[in-house]
Amino acid sequence: MIAGIIGATGYAGAELLRLLNGHPKITGFNLSSVSFEGEKIEDIYPNFLGRISSVLQKAEDVIASSDVVFSALPHGVGEKYAEACIGRKIHYIDLSADFRFGDDEVIFNDWYGKKYDFPNLHKDSIYGLPELNRQKIKELTSKGAVIIGNPGCYPTGALLGVYAALSKGLVCDSDTPVIVNSASGTSGGGREPARSFHYSECADSTAPYKIASHRHSPEIARHMAFMTPAGAKPPKVIFTPHLVPMNRGILSTIYISLSEKWRITPVNNNLQPSKEIKEKTLEIRQLYSDFYKDEPFVRVLPDGVTAATNRVRQSNYCDISVHIDINGSTLIVATAIDNMVKGAAGQAVQNMNILFGFDETDGLKAIPMIF
Amino acid sequence: MIAGIIGATGYAGAELLRLLNGHPKITGFNLSSVSFEGEKIEDIYPNFLGRISSVLQKAEDVIASSDVVFSALPHGVGEKYAEACIGRKIHYIDLSADFRFGDDEVIFNDWYGKKYDFPNLHKDSIYGLPELNRQKIKELTSKGAVIIGNPGCYPTGALLGVYAALSKGLVCDSDTPVIVNSASGTSGGGREPARSFHYSECADSTAPYKIASHRHSPEIARHMAFMTPAGAKPPKVIFTPHLVPMNRGILSTIYISLSEKWRITPVNNNLQPSKEIKEKTLEIRQLYSDFYKDEPFVRVLPDGVTAATNRVRQSNYCDISVHIDINGSTLIVATAIDNMVKGAAGQAVQNMNILFGFDETDGLKAIPMIF
Amino acid sequence: MIAGIIGATGYAGAELLRLLNGHPKITGFNLSSVSFEGEKIEDIYPNFLGRISSVLQKAEDVIASSDVVFSALPHGVGEKYAEACIGRKIHYIDLSADFRFGDDEVIFNDWYGKKYDFPNLHKDSIYGLPELNRQKIKELTSKGAVIIGNPGCYPTGALLGVYAALSKGLVCDSDTPVIVNSASGTSGGGREPARSFHYSECADSTAPYKIASHRHSPEIARHMAFMTPAGAKPPKVIFTPHLVPMNRGILSTIYISLSEKWRITPVNNNLQPSKEIKEKTLEIRQLYSDFYKDEPFVRVLPDGVTAATNRVRQSNYCDISVHIDINGSTLIVATAIDNMVKGAAGQAVQNMNILFGFDETDGLKAIPMIF
Amino acid sequence: MIAGIIGATGYAGAELLRLLNGHPKITGFNLSSVSFEGEKIEDIYPNFLGRISSVLQKAEDVIASSDVVFSALPHGVGEKYAEACIGRKIHYIDLSADFRFGDDEVIFNDWYGKKYDFPNLHKDSIYGLPELNRQKIKELTSKGAVIIGNPGCYPTGALLGVYAALSKGLVCDSDTPVIVNSASGTSGGGREPARSFHYSECADSTAPYKIASHRHSPEIARHMAFMTPAGAKPPKVIFTPHLVPMNRGILSTIYISLSEKWRITPVNNNLQPSKEIKEKTLEIRQLYSDFYKDEPFVRVLPDGVTAATNRVRQSNYCDISVHIDINGSTLIVATAIDNMVKGAAGQAVQNMNILFGFDETDGLKAIPMIF
Repeated sequence: MIAGIIGATGYAGAELLRLLNGHPKITGFNLSSVSFEGEKIEDIYPNFLGRISSVLQKAEDVIASSDVVFSALPHGVGEKYAEACIGRKIHYIDLSADFRFGDDEVIFNDWYGKKYDFPNLHKDSIYGLPELNRQKIKELTSKGAVIIGNPGCYPTGALLGVYAALSKGLVCDSDTPVIVNSASGTSGGGREPARSFHYSECADSTAPYKIASHRHSPEIARHMAFMTPAGAKPPKVIFTPHLVPMNRGILSTIYISLSEKWRITPVNNNLQPSKEIKEKTLEIRQLYSDFYKDEPFVRVLPDGVTAATNRVRQSNYCDISVHIDINGSTLIVATAIDNMVKGAAGQAVQNMNILFGFDETDGLKAIPMIF
Repeated sequence: MIAGIIGATGYAGAELLRLLNGHPKITGFNLSSVSFEGEKIEDIYPNFLGRISSVLQKAEDVIASSDVVFSALPHGVGEKYAEACIGRKIHYIDLSADFRFGDDEVIFNDWYGKKYDFPNLHKDSIYGLPELNRQKIKELTSKGAVIIGNPGCYPTGALLGVYAALSKGLVCDSDTPVIVNSASGTSGGGREPARSFHYSECADSTAPYKIASHRHSPEIARHMAFMTPAGAKPPKVIFTPHLVPMNRGILSTIYISLSEKWRITPVNNNLQPSKEIKEKTLEIRQLYSDFYKDEPFVRVLPDGVTAATNRVRQSNYCDISVHIDINGSTLIVATAIDNMVKGAAGQAVQNMNILFGFDETDGLKAIPMIF
Repeated sequence: MIAGIIGATGYAGAELLRLLNGHPKITGFNLSSVSFEGEKIEDIYPNFLGRISSVLQKAEDVIASSDVVFSALPHGVGEKYAEACIGRKIHYIDLSADFRFGDDEVIFNDWYGKKYDFPNLHKDSIYGLPELNRQKIKELTSKGAVIIGNPGCYPTGALLGVYAALSKGLVCDSDTPVIVNSASGTSGGGREPARSFHYSECADSTAPYKIASHRHSPEIARHMAFMTPAGAKPPKVIFTPHLVPMNRGILSTIYISLSEKWRITPVNNNLQPSKEIKEKTLEIRQLYSDFYKDEPFVRVLPDGVTAATNRVRQSNYCDISVHIDINGSTLIVATAIDNMVKGAAGQAVQNMNILFGFDETDGLKAIPMIF
Repeated sequence: MIAGIIGATGYAGAELLRLLNGHPKITGFNLSSVSFEGEKIEDIYPNFLGRISSVLQKAEDVIASSDVVFSALPHGVGEKYAEACIGRKIHYIDLSADFRFGDDEVIFNDWYGKKYDFPNLHKDSIYGLPELNRQKIKELTSKGAVIIGNPGCYPTGALLGVYAALSKGLVCDSDTPVIVNSASGTSGGGREPARSFHYSECADSTAPYKIASHRHSPEIARHMAFMTPAGAKPPKVIFTPHLVPMNRGILSTIYISLSEKWRITPVNNNLQPSKEIKEKTLEIRQLYSDFYKDEPFVRVLPDGVTAATNRVRQSNYCDISVHIDINGSTLIVATAIDNMVKGAAGQAVQNMNILFGFDETDGLKAIPMIF
């Protein structure tokens, strides 16, 4: 099967190449780039030297000769290619934000400054978080070519951290927001040099950015709403991204106010975690384990192990550890993903595997690197 | 004036040396170390070569010949030295946790596993956060030698981030906890090699640790209570530390549920920050600026600048930026300190300056290094 | 085929596991550890959670039930296990230095402080640098079980950088030594915490270590001698390792005094590289390309591309770039390897592939990660 | 005294500001910037907030109202400002390469692609390496305003590593070149974002660059010639810079072929360092110590301590360790500097101190930070 990648020279495109190159069903590539058309991908990324020598083509040519198309373009420029793929009856997996909001054009327009060019395409597109939408993706494939909006990196780690809790009624029905405090590596900022990612400016430092104004906020809120059981109130969300000096990885620390049923009144407010808290933590951990037990890429960590980005490095895993605050009222969930894999290219491959009925772990079996 | 440092070979002790070496009133040092007694400090830390050649002595000898004593010992072993200093009528500034809890022995015992050897010493000791206790420190000096419990690194950044809000009634009186999500550099872990701080295990990675069980939790909660105006309910606190791959710095992102008076009802819950939110943010920033206007080491950052650890590196500043979440109900405060300076040695020097009536910035005038 | 790893809990052992887990011919593992006997490998390394649950056994039990044995033990303790494998007629691939010196017990004893326990084993062992000894390894397998001394990390990058030049007579026959100036990531220091690898002590810093006294010096010199054509004088070698703040990778910059035939007299000593130098550089690059043209893991980089460790990350490649100094008399060769892969576990897998007649790239097909 | 800085918004300019701000004789600043004219420096660099609020002016205005002028402009644009300063009879200290080559316009033109606009200025300018030219700088001040070409970062570490050896006849008179293998932190690349310094492209990696073609090569060669005693042959030089993932620092490992008189014939070529080598090393170390004994910023390290960039961080020191290779024929000198201090801004301040007869350590007394 020939895979096409539109916008192959960005980091997400190049990471896709790395993963698809090890995929047992992929036999070749078609790659496009506006900036580097006519050049070889191995000359743009010398790490591919001697391995992937494809010449960068026009997007149209890629679409015309591929069996599946991934788009790793910037936001707002890819709809016409989705249209072309549907026209050719091939699946289109979009790593940009263009198809993450379904028919909710208002939000997209408000946060991305652009209206839909092809509103109809969005109605039938689907948000490609397999843990949430696997069944729907499978159903759609029975009807023809599918457009998948591959989730954002931060939303992936945030949503998988709350899905079990939301589904099982652990989340308080009050106005207390779910707080998602995330730290990302620099690869999330892409390949283009910028002051924020200039080594001397970001090494050996940590800082939040786009507080209360990051585009992933509405994406997280929207899909948390879909995760909320019928009848329950979707949570408000506060999302704060931070840049930390590492290449890969997103660590999300999520604060969830527990519903009445799950709260504990600690014996002594000032003292160390009580026995009741420890027991309740184990109970919730078990609930999470059960909830995700058939998921190939979600690992609910055992007691005593805390999510860390270097334990999922270069893999498609989302690691989750669950904790209860000393006061007994707040569930703290830590999730770790590799932002370039489960947060981008790996999840796109996972979606392709679902679309084509492949083993969902094909091309994604690598064990996380320790360092 | 001769400064004594007990436990001079740990990171905090060595950082104290670096700062005191540039202090205009300090003319010499006496240093102690159990592990390296008889050796020269410059042989332990080659960065001091040719500059500080002091031989490491016994703690008792340091006390006997110094005009002020800093203790950079581990927790739980320093009380007898405090007793000795008070006996000699010289000030004692303790960088460990031993004197951070006043006469609240129960908390100290519960979290540090030790009872007080000299309970009386604690009654007259004071928590050395100058922004909170400057006046009390000055008053105590009129009565004789003073014991100062120098604040922990995380509590310093956490407490300065909420002090203005607590004092001015911005904090909701409900049970919604104040959440302090902090990221620290590795120097906070001290000089002794350990797996957690082994380069290959912590570089290029981010992870929380000691969730709901870090010893700085009760320290933060205790002093937030002291910051709460009479009649108001002290907030509950959730504190989550993270280790990030940088040498120095603590970034704390603090989520404070706003009191009714300060809340905003956003026009549209899903959309970007409203005009009202922007205006209210400016109002709160001004309130913070006014509150800290006489503080030499607190910088409330202007609109558009967010706290970042590399903007306070190697300085005694605590930078603070204030934000309001898109939902209008939560104040987000980001604070940045250098954990070794304002979070340890620098604050100890600041306390010494107050104790002796020196200019509070003496020895602490260095501008933050960009990188 | 079942692979046994003795000393599986060190970094080299764990990296072997990661690679063998993706090897198409390996169906299971037996692992040993003295320190962690009875525990599961996934509890030592949480990155393996849910993937490799093997219980750590005794070395003897591993040998008894495996089809090939890798030893990732410290130097000086593995000979008896080699003896046991030969007794069982299975191949033994040793990642320590124990079998890198053949029957030259004097050098081994002088540098590693130990005599051979089983001198006969060493006579038939072979230094597992495939580019040098592939043919010999294949011949040995026709005679029975083989002991392979897997090369050291630094020697691998150093030797591959000079092999073509030595073979083709580019190296000056004078006393001018070949200088190998290398920079390594921290994983080469192993898993045990130590001050040198404590994050705060090695991050954001560069330093040489063990100048003129590193154990890899005699290993490099010995095998450069084997690379020297009959009749020519083996070069003297100066080797200087440096520690740089990165997890993986070794960059070796090698200075080779050119033989008379290959030297260029620059037109103007002070000016920029002359046309003759550029032409001669292309000629030598071609010579290197031709020399390594059948090697699956050596990439001679094209004009304009310089060896960099991030271009071989996590792969088994050795990248080589060749340059001539402005003076025309010195060939400068830069080589980059991943110290844990081509410098350790990957090369061990490559040796296994040769021993068993597998495709030499089996289990080693991953494309280098960009970041 | 008012200091002017032309080009104050680059890294070198900003570092100068940091140092001059702590200088006891500097009472104010005038700063210029083409890109940021009219803005405040504290808005460009938030680390200066509340401390340095100077508005960025035109270069001409800075010159007109300052008592000394530093230029931190790019190469090739500053001569006219030097001319203006000489016209105003004030000293001009240029951190660019413009005045590092004296009247040797051919080299400058060949390597920097520009002819001199004011050839006369260069005749009377001086290369500001105090250890080499202190006396000449002092003499020039007696004649009026002086132009100082502040040395490049790499040349500073390289030249101080060989000066003692060259002066004392340790360097072989043959054609064997002195090899300077250097590793630099990223701040040397300046403030403008570029792919080479994009975090994801340079973190966790090491690579050489501009092999045999870096502009500092002719600067090093030129001044090594000046260091060579009359009658002796100046050495050829090979210089190879590397980029390593750290913010600050340059580590230079220098290989010097020893003159006949200083060579040792090792007893056994293959074995570990002999007693003779250890003794000769101590002798050369003593020779270096004696040579630099009056230098305030050169530290010849004691036996057992090797130069490391984190031991000179943020200070004006050049640390030097000396070693002899196992073969007995090559002296290996390792030098460490902070590229932004001794390699740029600190040395500029040192030069100012000499020009004005201040204590040479004024403004440069900070002890190196451990981390």
